[in-house]
Amino acid sequence: MKSTLTLGLAATLLALPSMGVAQEAAEAAAPGFDEIGPYIMTTLLFCMAGFLVFFMACGFAMLEGGLVRSKNVTMQMTKNIALYSVAAIMYWFMGFNLMYPGDFNGYVGSFFVPTVLDPVGVAAADAALDYASIGSDFFFQLVFVAATASIVSGALAERIKLWPFLAFVVVLTGVFYPISGSWQWGGGWLSEAGFSDFAGSTIVHSVGGWAALAGAIVLGPRIGKYGKDGKVIPIPGSNLALATLGTFILWLGWFGFNGGSQLAMGTVGDVSDVSRIFANTNMAAAAGAVTALILTQVMYKKPDLTMVLNGALAGLVSITAEPLAPTLFGALWIGAVGGVIVVFAVPMLDKLKIDDVVGAIPVHLFAGIWGTIAVIFYNGDASLSTQLLGIAAYGVFTFVASLILWFILKATVGIRVGEEEEINGLDMAELGMEAYPEFSRG
Amino acid sequence: MKSTLTLGLAATLLALPSMGVAQEAAEAAAPGFDEIGPYIMTTLLFCMAGFLVFFMACGFAMLEGGLVRSKNVTMQMTKNIALYSVAAIMYWFMGFNLMYPGDFNGYVGSFFVPTVLDPVGVAAADAALDYASIGSDFFFQLVFVAATASIVSGALAERIKLWPFLAFVVVLTGVFYPISGSWQWGGGWLSEAGFSDFAGSTIVHSVGGWAALAGAIVLGPRIGKYGKDGKVIPIPGSNLALATLGTFILWLGWFGFNGGSQLAMGTVGDVSDVSRIFANTNMAAAAGAVTALILTQVMYKKPDLTMVLNGALAGLVSITAEPLAPTLFGALWIGAVGGVIVVFAVPMLDKLKIDDVVGAIPVHLFAGIWGTIAVIFYNGDASLSTQLLGIAAYGVFTFVASLILWFILKATVGIRVGEEEEINGLDMAELGMEAYPEFSRG
Amino acid sequence: MKSTLTLGLAATLLALPSMGVAQEAAEAAAPGFDEIGPYIMTTLLFCMAGFLVFFMACGFAMLEGGLVRSKNVTMQMTKNIALYSVAAIMYWFMGFNLMYPGDFNGYVGSFFVPTVLDPVGVAAADAALDYASIGSDFFFQLVFVAATASIVSGALAERIKLWPFLAFVVVLTGVFYPISGSWQWGGGWLSEAGFSDFAGSTIVHSVGGWAALAGAIVLGPRIGKYGKDGKVIPIPGSNLALATLGTFILWLGWFGFNGGSQLAMGTVGDVSDVSRIFANTNMAAAAGAVTALILTQVMYKKPDLTMVLNGALAGLVSITAEPLAPTLFGALWIGAVGGVIVVFAVPMLDKLKIDDVVGAIPVHLFAGIWGTIAVIFYNGDASLSTQLLGIAAYGVFTFVASLILWFILKATVGIRVGEEEEINGLDMAELGMEAYPEFSRG
Repeated sequence: MKSTLTLGLAATLLALPSMGVAQEAAEAAAPGFDEIGPYIMTTLLFCMAGFLVFFMACGFAMLEGGLVRSKNVTMQMTKNIALYSVAAIMYWFMGFNLMYPGDFNGYVGSFFVPTVLDPVGVAAADAALDYASIGSDFFFQLVFVAATASIVSGALAERIKLWPFLAFVVVLTGVFYPISGSWQWGGGWLSEAGFSDFAGSTIVHSVGGWAALAGAIVLGPRIGKYGKDGKVIPIPGSNLALATLGTFILWLGWFGFNGGSQLAMGTVGDVSDVSRIFANTNMAAAAGAVTALILTQVMYKKPDLTMVLNGALAGLVSITAEPLAPTLFGALWIGAVGGVIVVFAVPMLDKLKIDDVVGAIPVHLFAGIWGTIAVIFYNGDASLSTQLLGIAAYGVFTFVASLILWFILKATVGIRVGEEEEINGLDMAELGMEAYPEFSRG
Repeated sequence: MKSTLTLGLAATLLALPSMGVAQEAAEAAAPGFDEIGPYIMTTLLFCMAGFLVFFMACGFAMLEGGLVRSKNVTMQMTKNIALYSVAAIMYWFMGFNLMYPGDFNGYVGSFFVPTVLDPVGVAAADAALDYASIGSDFFFQLVFVAATASIVSGALAERIKLWPFLAFVVVLTGVFYPISGSWQWGGGWLSEAGFSDFAGSTIVHSVGGWAALAGAIVLGPRIGKYGKDGKVIPIPGSNLALATLGTFILWLGWFGFNGGSQLAMGTVGDVSDVSRIFANTNMAAAAGAVTALILTQVMYKKPDLTMVLNGALAGLVSITAEPLAPTLFGALWIGAVGGVIVVFAVPMLDKLKIDDVVGAIPVHLFAGIWGTIAVIFYNGDASLSTQLLGIAAYGVFTFVASLILWFILKATVGIRVGEEEEINGLDMAELGMEAYPEFSRG
Repeated sequence: MKSTLTLGLAATLLALPSMGVAQEAAEAAAPGFDEIGPYIMTTLLFCMAGFLVFFMACGFAMLEGGLVRSKNVTMQMTKNIALYSVAAIMYWFMGFNLMYPGDFNGYVGSFFVPTVLDPVGVAAADAALDYASIGSDFFFQLVFVAATASIVSGALAERIKLWPFLAFVVVLTGVFYPISGSWQWGGGWLSEAGFSDFAGSTIVHSVGGWAALAGAIVLGPRIGKYGKDGKVIPIPGSNLALATLGTFILWLGWFGFNGGSQLAMGTVGDVSDVSRIFANTNMAAAAGAVTALILTQVMYKKPDLTMVLNGALAGLVSITAEPLAPTLFGALWIGAVGGVIVVFAVPMLDKLKIDDVVGAIPVHLFAGIWGTIAVIFYNGDASLSTQLLGIAAYGVFTFVASLILWFILKATVGIRVGEEEEINGLDMAELGMEAYPEFSRG
């Protein structure tokens, strides 16, 4: 890192290769901005959208940390930072090239091909000038797969063991997600069939939701969640300020999630589309939040903050399959339906005694299905049957594969902590470390 | 979302309209970067600045959540996410086109004209090539109006009812703010009179402050804030780590707030100005914080963190009316005066028994007035009389209109919770949900 | 701030100089994007990377606030916002021009030369078209120096007085850091000797670590940290959710820290390199976290969240000296070694009775040394001997200078709070304000 005053000097004296000097020399005969501008802008889009979506890992951690009881917060933090890290390694090790296999049979690509980046200071002649750098594309795709794993961690909180959970994440991010992702975003059979999922209501969110649902069924509910008489016992989250922080961070990250999925920013139409996506994404979230606020006021006479937070997230998931084509009014009502879904689906899951600690299944699976269907209202190229085909394909594959893996883990290493550990909290039992050791429980 | 490997294939096979493929075809005969570069850069500026300012909604929530008592934290979170969502909907529904009405009488534009975005993949010929996309402009303006509403929520915390507060937000963000905003940023009478307010010390911050002041007067102070002998009883915030987090987030967002208000990034002069604004904005915040730190040490023998946080924010508000023209030293002393204002104004308001829970009125109203006056020191085109005219115009309009609305709300639905509800906390009384249910009160 | 509808009108009527209008006129005969594009992109890179690194100040505050006991949280917040503000002022007042002195003797430049920005709306002919605006460069460098000071505040938490600490920050950010920084990034003697430190494993992180180490030695350990029998008594952090938040924010900021240090984004090679740095930075952090997770499981039978957080940070510090040249696998193992270092160095420091509250010395000093050595594995222009020379030069200078300053401060004003104050907590003793006044201690 050198300042303007000395860069020229240093360049002359040292010709440091890591300082972009070599590239500058090459630039003398380089193509002009009409040729390289789109590559630069799209690569920048992926970097910027990438760091926003990266931050969603933090958002999930805070949301989940706020919605679990304080005795499980250290564990939830550990799971979240670990799952992101595991996803990053697995997606490099095999996920990225399994998901984006180029010319392939349309169903499964090649395993165990680690990602290789563009060379340092890649020349324009060697770069994908009509797209973006491999590094930016890889980074952007990688933060998406981590989001999928984060969804699972929230639903299964407060009772699943750390290491079996991470083993599941290894397979989810290295195998399941990349394979099913290749069907659409890798140019596979669903893409050829005409399925449409702009930024991943199904491919990312529903997939996370299906994996979570399978896990919640195999794992069973938390002790004390459902009374002997079938009564649902509310277990309040320990820190709603933290949960709200997490929701705002997720909302922020979603601008990158949906905006970056435009996959281009170097033309008037593309950058305008990115901004259109920003506006629609924001509107859907706002509509989801307001809808949940009003609905809980009407239904329960008291607005429910956790529903409002999940309403905003459901609005975001709902618009994710098609954040570009709708008008602002379209984004509003699509997001509002997402808010409705959450308010009704959370108690419905409880009736089925499926214990989803943070509401991840309503938000990511149900609203994800809704969003994928809603594509047909504003995108003339989408058809209901093809959308349902895609929803079903991702659902069957992910749910069945996850179910099998959860059963295998359960049968071998076990996936659930002991009863005493669960009652005392996973923090002391599994980690020996409380999140808030100085604050006494009320 | 497709990777480089398969984009070409998919484009050929599917011609997916949401993937930017159609635009790419159109691009064949598109104008070069000399023509479209500025549009792309400015649209990007609005998207980037927009997500930063969006995140200020989170900053306000955390700041306020940290400065209220724990029994009101759930309510403060609910208000903040709800007010942002309401603002987003209202500004789409009528605010944006009321504020930026184009050719109008200079005082009030047209109501009930919802925002319409650029078409998907807008062609260069149809885009505002000398400015930016409508989506990016709308999004950037929208996050500003939300900031105004956030200011109100902090001042009136811990005793105002949720729904009347949101009713006020509906009118503030849909009517009051857009009308007065149009006088300057919409090209109305104040703009023609030569008033100068670069990023909104007056138009955003003072307006929020006036609305809050009117509300605080009508609402009255919290129970127990002022003793019978006129003594001021400090009510400490429940979580100063959260308040500090909120302040840092607001500081971060302010780079977008002021930097984005350059409204252009496609020339050497414009991008350099954006960076100049970044440097000045940062300096003013730093100066405000250090000033409050030193002053509270000198005056009270103990530095006061909440004053330091508000000092930083007051520095930011102070520089907002003119973050470009001052030198770094100018930004330093303008921000420092902001810090002084906060330290003296907070106790002064208490003497007047105006109960402002988070110090929003000193920070946003008083420092906003100061910043608007300070424009004259570095911007040769501004005059004191015109600046005072603008300050007075926004003050009279917003204060009177807000006062009337608060009185109407008070006379009809009531704006204040009952005494018992206030003492027990709004969280249990109005929402039935504690923010920190497991932590016992000391 | 004006919208598209009225900008033209206002421009015609008012010719507001702060609105970019003057520049637009100048642009008529301006050079095209082939000439100005790189300047615009690199200036944007510094602004974007700058706000990300700014946010690291928040990350440090949250990390440290989570790892100290609740009785010292207000103080830790105060120190962090104050140190950032002091650094911002000192770096303007003398640091920037001392560090980037242009033509100088290679060892020490000129003191007391405040930063002067480019003029408002600088013309292309007057701008550094082969680099970036001064404002963006200054801002980007400034947030780096603040990071150095943040490192010190963490290590010395819970017993150092506020004002002597800030006095140290004044000298560190205004004198020590800029002088030693000029040796390399200012084009001084180490740069000429061929030392290589891309984004500052040594220049920023080790320097902070050395200053912290000197301080920890002079200050002595916290009361109760080391038992009479030499036993180490763990002092758990009060809020691990906050510490995790801080770590995620630091990770986010590091994309700016390392990515921005490419110092250019206007060519295919440069923007691709920025993205390559993003991918490598992320990988090193992930590898550090996973390594610490596995190691603590193996060594202690229980994973240790604070080690995982510090493992991620150590991975980040490790890759900072050379985030560009390594392959993703290179980033993985370099980061993993960082994770190993932290797990072994934390107990080692305790054996030496050097009390480092947050683990800043292992993370920033030890991993910083490792990262600086690791440059030689992927950067063919670096040699072990020169890297060791640089490490030693920064170590000797910073450690000795810091030691002297700490001793002077100790001998004059004193640097440590009284025993009673320390036991009661710095918040009440020095600030009279608790961070969590309503939550009783367990």
